[in-house]
Amino acid sequence: MKPNDGFSLKEYLVERKALIDRALAGYLPGEGNGQPVIFQAVRYSLFAGGKRLRPILCLAAAEAVGREAGALLPVACALELIHTYSLIHDDLPAMDNDDYRRGRLTSHKVFGEGIAILAGDALLTEAFRLLTRRELMPGISPELLLHVTGEIAEAAGYFGMIGGQVLDVRSEGEPVDLETLHLIHRLKTGALIRVSLRAGAILAGAAGTELASLSDYGCQIGLAFQIADDILNVEGDRALLGKGTGSDAARGKVTFPALLGIEASRARAEALIIEALAALASFDDRAAPLRAIARYILVRNS
Amino acid sequence: MKPNDGFSLKEYLVERKALIDRALAGYLPGEGNGQPVIFQAVRYSLFAGGKRLRPILCLAAAEAVGREAGALLPVACALELIHTYSLIHDDLPAMDNDDYRRGRLTSHKVFGEGIAILAGDALLTEAFRLLTRRELMPGISPELLLHVTGEIAEAAGYFGMIGGQVLDVRSEGEPVDLETLHLIHRLKTGALIRVSLRAGAILAGAAGTELASLSDYGCQIGLAFQIADDILNVEGDRALLGKGTGSDAARGKVTFPALLGIEASRARAEALIIEALAALASFDDRAAPLRAIARYILVRNS
Repeated sequence: MKPNDGFSLKEYLVERKALIDRALAGYLPGEGNGQPVIFQAVRYSLFAGGKRLRPILCLAAAEAVGREAGALLPVACALELIHTYSLIHDDLPAMDNDDYRRGRLTSHKVFGEGIAILAGDALLTEAFRLLTRRELMPGISPELLLHVTGEIAEAAGYFGMIGGQVLDVRSEGEPVDLETLHLIHRLKTGALIRVSLRAGAILAGAAGTELASLSDYGCQIGLAFQIADDILNVEGDRALLGKGTGSDAARGKVTFPALLGIEASRARAEALIIEALAALASFDDRAAPLRAIARYILVRNS
Repeated sequence: MKPNDGFSLKEYLVERKALIDRALAGYLPGEGNGQPVIFQAVRYSLFAGGKRLRPILCLAAAEAVGREAGALLPVACALELIHTYSLIHDDLPAMDNDDYRRGRLTSHKVFGEGIAILAGDALLTEAFRLLTRRELMPGISPELLLHVTGEIAEAAGYFGMIGGQVLDVRSEGEPVDLETLHLIHRLKTGALIRVSLRAGAILAGAAGTELASLSDYGCQIGLAFQIADDILNVEGDRALLGKGTGSDAARGKVTFPALLGIEASRARAEALIIEALAALASFDDRAAPLRAIARYILVRNS
């Protein structure tokens, strides 16, 4: 792959998704028929057509600072397990009460609420088990691995993703101002995206300004990604997005388009992407995938 | 404390519970009024009068192999966070649908189902964060800490506690034989109790026969504890147990007394405790607390 000369983001994303899917399939038990229902439920949600954005960002961050990313695959996959658990729990009747996700029935519609809750619990637990499997990560120091595990737990917990989901659940049907909406998204989506970049960077040996720049990039694209998602929810093609468009509005969820209008929301997302690209200014061509992903957020349609 | 000469289990348990409660309170955010609801929910369930059996066993295992246990408090507390999360999720309407636990309303009755699910998620996530906080555990090697974190995740996940809960949820109202009931309890209760002992022992430097003996002790008392719990559920005094007695039967849950009768269940629990004590045969007086705890399981009434 030559990032500068004819770099194709589309090919890159396809190749990376395949790499991550193979790794995930290998780490998890229960492929094939006749497996315990909990393995079926875990695989059902994990292999539901996700883009693998978080693991891709983790690997790309490591490569941007000059490390071969293969040794970090378990860490990248752990981030996807955490993301998948959060989707299963968010979809539950007591939360967003969604029947569909990515065009398929949600976990609780297929397996029942009890098993869906347990499948989420199992994915979260398995993520942390995967982070400890040193035999899969030759050359990674246990000190750095523990540190990164702590950062991931913090980003996923009540100071991060769970905190954002709590604010989201509690603000449904309530008036929400722009500042609160920012906070919800920075926590609910942004924290895990940011730590995906930090995990890859730290395990690749980044520190100081280099690490801060990649964190900053993660912050900006995390929020831009959420604004783009809000816009898609209003405008998107139902078939591409895999769930009913306009569903946020129907549920009384406040979104960026609802507060700012579509055009101003788009402008906000563009400004964030410009900031994200600026954060990468000191990186060489090895950051080409990160640059291309940032630009892609503005034009994606699913 | 002189274990052999006038060792008082009652004093020991009171002192240890106080030690663990202080540590837990210090590790968690959000004491006092006006805190975010998720911190309130986490504290509500965590400080609901639990016996702290798992952390006490973890510390006692470390002491049985001759290590001062203070440095392991974060690991011991992480086990209690995992136990508490499992209780919150088990009590949910989609699982056991319990309104009371230890004489108080369950989390979802107080905070609503959405927050209760998130409080469980937060406790599980925070447990793993706590396991990475090396600044709280001077002298513990990162290699051992990662290894123990992996064992705890395995015991809590679909090969352990979650696997047991899945079997439990799926077998409600179904005919269950003794072998299946053993399996459910070995996974649902036993795995976390066993790993509590292993974690303490491994971090104290145990290996080989010493570690195997403490694992074995954990297996036996874990199952004995569950049988004793089943008996209490039939016979116990409602006020002491804090929930309606006979609730398992009302829900169509199979229990040891239902399959074996009360007397044979009691005999089974006694046999397990004898095996547990035999596993400790090669340990000196520093294992006195573990011996006393094993005997106590047979006579506890709450």
